[in-house]
Amino acid sequence: MHSFEELVKAFATRFNTNHFPKEPNSLYEPGNYFLSMGGKRIRPVMSLMGCELFGEIPEDAWNVAIAIELFHNFTLIHDDIMDAAPLRRGMETVHTKYNSSTALLCGDVMMIKAYQYLNKIGLEHLKAVLEVFNKTAAEVCEGQQLDMDFEQQSNVLLDDYLHMISLKTSVLLAASLQLGAIIGGAGEANCKNIYAFGLHLGLAFQIQDDYLDAFGDPEKFGKDVGGDIRQNKKTFLLLHALQVATPAQKATIESLMQTNPPDKVAQMLAVFKACNVDAWAKELKEQYLAKAYEYFDEIAVTAARKTPLKDLASFLIQRDY
Amino acid sequence: MHSFEELVKAFATRFNTNHFPKEPNSLYEPGNYFLSMGGKRIRPVMSLMGCELFGEIPEDAWNVAIAIELFHNFTLIHDDIMDAAPLRRGMETVHTKYNSSTALLCGDVMMIKAYQYLNKIGLEHLKAVLEVFNKTAAEVCEGQQLDMDFEQQSNVLLDDYLHMISLKTSVLLAASLQLGAIIGGAGEANCKNIYAFGLHLGLAFQIQDDYLDAFGDPEKFGKDVGGDIRQNKKTFLLLHALQVATPAQKATIESLMQTNPPDKVAQMLAVFKACNVDAWAKELKEQYLAKAYEYFDEIAVTAARKTPLKDLASFLIQRDY
Repeated sequence: MHSFEELVKAFATRFNTNHFPKEPNSLYEPGNYFLSMGGKRIRPVMSLMGCELFGEIPEDAWNVAIAIELFHNFTLIHDDIMDAAPLRRGMETVHTKYNSSTALLCGDVMMIKAYQYLNKIGLEHLKAVLEVFNKTAAEVCEGQQLDMDFEQQSNVLLDDYLHMISLKTSVLLAASLQLGAIIGGAGEANCKNIYAFGLHLGLAFQIQDDYLDAFGDPEKFGKDVGGDIRQNKKTFLLLHALQVATPAQKATIESLMQTNPPDKVAQMLAVFKACNVDAWAKELKEQYLAKAYEYFDEIAVTAARKTPLKDLASFLIQRDY
Repeated sequence: MHSFEELVKAFATRFNTNHFPKEPNSLYEPGNYFLSMGGKRIRPVMSLMGCELFGEIPEDAWNVAIAIELFHNFTLIHDDIMDAAPLRRGMETVHTKYNSSTALLCGDVMMIKAYQYLNKIGLEHLKAVLEVFNKTAAEVCEGQQLDMDFEQQSNVLLDDYLHMISLKTSVLLAASLQLGAIIGGAGEANCKNIYAFGLHLGLAFQIQDDYLDAFGDPEKFGKDVGGDIRQNKKTFLLLHALQVATPAQKATIESLMQTNPPDKVAQMLAVFKACNVDAWAKELKEQYLAKAYEYFDEIAVTAARKTPLKDLASFLIQRDY
């Protein structure tokens, strides 16, 4: 068994290569550029860990992990077009550095390349892997569409937001674990439990992400704290605040969103705190985390085998804030 | 065995259904809208014909045919975004009727749906089918990228243009035939020959298309004759003319392209005729057609089995102009 760090390194040695032909350079160079920007590689490593729960990591698992990471990067390239995002990880996005048409095609061909890696795996698991992969891929698109829809809606219910976030981010984490487990030879019950673990862990992580963006310690969080508030982004916190706020508090929130005063973040945080949004978010995160661990405990392998995955989950869900 | 018309009808009964879930409607309704616009369904029917060369049409062949048509429509939706095309078949394109982001996602999810149909086929042919499909899908993207690159280049060589057109349009026709043949149980040699037949037929068709757009009888051709010339579109005709024209003729062509006079089409046709572009294009088409039929003749099945496909080829390659 291997730790997260070991698997990240091992994955890098296989992933940091040219996945594309040389020509046409105008199509494939942008893809190589984007992949060279790196990333945390959490999904492919989760897939490898899902596999290692049940056995050694065979060649098939590496191909599935590469496919997952390529698929994830395809979604990032297309999302960046839709969000008109100029930068990602501090570097120019593909549509900014090249143009939108090239970014569109570059994403398309990256998804196709993901399927080429999937088709390298043995017949034994091919159908099951494709079924999970295809279903997940469609769900990620659904999540992105719902996210765009919600940006246009003034009233978004928390449950609808949870459903969207689940599709947009959690299903791919869950599927990564499950795809690895399938390659590792897991049975149906274990596959269901590992998927449910990933889904709930993903939601806990997302709630934490929203929380830290508002209430995190800037030095520990590293990100631009308050960014979501400044951008009027719909988050767990904002949606919950709008549901529990008094009419006066609601009016303050809406006025802050419309007028963007210089102290918008501080004022919004004051309303959030008055509405107990911080305690609520912590509690909601803990609920999802507890649910995730319930499913985790149901996975029928020895506790020792579960250690690396448990460590990764603890690493993702920080507690020092 | 079935004729083209019979297969078009039979395909319609299976294809004209909702391929997508109901929700999110904002993602899937645009896809259903685009598919409802119809189309000639040449590729899926060629796939069915490729299969019927070798045997009955099994369930797998229908799933492959549906996947091919969904993939083709995915490319159309994304191409329309890149070309900023307001209309297709006289109706609003997806990005015009909805918006670019929705069109982008709608295309993505249509490609994924194609893979879902492919994954319905039996294990016996799954790997071979996916290999041809994936390779072709990447090539179609390459062709589209080259097409966009060429639009920005003043000097495009005819051979490079042929390569681009081959990727952008012919490989999918060729692969459609081959995928059907694989399902029909064709051996390697037959698969190669049917693919080469499709590739050369596709090029002959494209040369004819360029020819008819310039020299076709408007009443028989049905399309807006001269459209390519008016839009300065790089075609077989224009590229060849630029290669064989005298300096004076070349200057005329370039001036027409820059100044767009009211009689631009008539003047350009006069230069084309002076350069014998019309006779050259007819000859080039015949060469590709002859080559296509050479490969066709090499397919080792009875002449009777080949009749429907031969009829379709004759239908596609018209002679009365």
